[in-house]
Amino acid sequence: MKKITLLSVAILSSLSFSSFAKDCAPNLLPSWKDGESKSAIVDFVGQATKAESDTFVAVQDRIAVFDNDGTLWSEKPYYSQLAFALDRVKEMAPEHPEWKTEAPFKFVLEGDIESALGSGEEGLLKIIMATHSGMTVEQYQQDVKQWLAVAKDERFNKAYTDLTYQPMKEMLTYLQDHDFKTYIVSGGGVDFMRAWAPQAYNIPPEQIIGSALKYNYSYNDGKSTVTKDSSILTIDDKAGKVTNIQHIIGKKPILAVGNSDGDQAMMQWATSQPNSMAMIVHHTDAEREWKYDRESHVGKLDNALDEASSRDDWTLIDMKSDWCEVY
Amino acid sequence: MKKITLLSVAILSSLSFSSFAKDCAPNLLPSWKDGESKSAIVDFVGQATKAESDTFVAVQDRIAVFDNDGTLWSEKPYYSQLAFALDRVKEMAPEHPEWKTEAPFKFVLEGDIESALGSGEEGLLKIIMATHSGMTVEQYQQDVKQWLAVAKDERFNKAYTDLTYQPMKEMLTYLQDHDFKTYIVSGGGVDFMRAWAPQAYNIPPEQIIGSALKYNYSYNDGKSTVTKDSSILTIDDKAGKVTNIQHIIGKKPILAVGNSDGDQAMMQWATSQPNSMAMIVHHTDAEREWKYDRESHVGKLDNALDEASSRDDWTLIDMKSDWCEVY
Repeated sequence: MKKITLLSVAILSSLSFSSFAKDCAPNLLPSWKDGESKSAIVDFVGQATKAESDTFVAVQDRIAVFDNDGTLWSEKPYYSQLAFALDRVKEMAPEHPEWKTEAPFKFVLEGDIESALGSGEEGLLKIIMATHSGMTVEQYQQDVKQWLAVAKDERFNKAYTDLTYQPMKEMLTYLQDHDFKTYIVSGGGVDFMRAWAPQAYNIPPEQIIGSALKYNYSYNDGKSTVTKDSSILTIDDKAGKVTNIQHIIGKKPILAVGNSDGDQAMMQWATSQPNSMAMIVHHTDAEREWKYDRESHVGKLDNALDEASSRDDWTLIDMKSDWCEVY
Repeated sequence: MKKITLLSVAILSSLSFSSFAKDCAPNLLPSWKDGESKSAIVDFVGQATKAESDTFVAVQDRIAVFDNDGTLWSEKPYYSQLAFALDRVKEMAPEHPEWKTEAPFKFVLEGDIESALGSGEEGLLKIIMATHSGMTVEQYQQDVKQWLAVAKDERFNKAYTDLTYQPMKEMLTYLQDHDFKTYIVSGGGVDFMRAWAPQAYNIPPEQIIGSALKYNYSYNDGKSTVTKDSSILTIDDKAGKVTNIQHIIGKKPILAVGNSDGDQAMMQWATSQPNSMAMIVHHTDAEREWKYDRESHVGKLDNALDEASSRDDWTLIDMKSDWCEVY
């Protein structure tokens, strides 16, 4: 995980006055403490953008992919998209009297979230399908936006979009300023993320890749409608992240950032070429955020943690010691 | 199909000297004859980019989608990708002695293309799977590039990439110069197109959507590989074009251009909103290219031709009378 920091020093020293405001401390990645992680980012960008160097990467190949849950915003105690789904079940309950006696819906309505989450993949899929399919994409995204405008997470009492990580947003901006095309590649639902992530991260909808339900298109009496089907189109996790990037972008990213074993394949693939890097957000800060890795049910980081320790081109971001601010 | 041409006149008259080189005749879409089609393009771009007008479209929403076969390059007598597949069968034959007696391969090897094509969807799928799956994406695209470097079409004795339409390439450039994000959305294979279309049309791989086989990812001994599977991931045709655009771009295009009934859904969807347009390349030029529409097996244009006649926001491009040059 060691990166040569000489280059970053050289770059900082050689900066002309005109570029000072953009690239130099204290304005350079201000929420990042000086150290290995920050240097890794600055070195990597410096190397990729240094013309006439053999580490130079053409603008068209500066593809950077970021996981979302646990990498760009908090994912504990459970994914925000699931919090949305649970709240939607409560809202939709009057139209579904049968839910009062039907698991897992009855658990949600009784406020017994533990039992609802304990209903396994099949139960969670029922909740997702009931709340994520059957409507138009526009209607669904309006539901998401309305929910985000009022919902607060339980621990911090903040809007979910305020639980995005300030240092990671600075990193995205820094990459975008250096002509990187930044993508989200997340296990979360693509339509869910597209409802808010463009504003939160300055990443347009067409650079958001996620899990998806199939879409149905209908055309009647001159009216075009795309609705969300109740069958799965793609699960964007593990090897699925690689194959979705291949399918949708058609290029191997040079930078992959994640926080769990679900991102390991994408990171291995990205770093199977020269002039590439992987970074892992390691949740080490129980006080300001959450502390978890190998034993966690959400965002389990185990094999990828071992791999990071053994590779020079993988860098662990230690949330507690590397970040001045979290949110 | 009538478009007001006053705006284009106004725009041309009001241009300052500095923008003359970019926007004015004879440099403005030089391969397009003055007339309804050219005016439709110029008017549409003028309206979308005119600040403070109620037809103005923000840069982020200037999404234009183009079919490829028959819209950006010739598709007769059969798709170029099929010509590639047939040539690959001949090249691969020594490794497959069983093909000498097995339909549809034996027809290809005997030079009986008519029987090979007559083997129906099942037969053609066998040819596609045999030539398009089992290898890495990189290897496949190298095969495509090598083929394109030497193959010639039978009628014009030109390289296939020289059968791209000059007027359409000018239209793409014109849109790109006005901050449109141009996409290919084609029934052709996405990996096939990505091997050459970026150079031919100045459209990057991530803006090419097509039919695709599933991808397999493997990681062994530190080596990452993405191979092409022999099962179908998506068929990018008819309603599939709409649902793929929804999935991959996440925005409704404001301009959709095609040439067949396979593009009709995409055009209907795009033009189900204000300030949008559809265009259809009508193959009317038997001498310089091909002449076909309602009765053609390849690129059948029937229902969409009727719809174009009845809608003001759909414009037919008459290849014979609208284009000074074809290739």
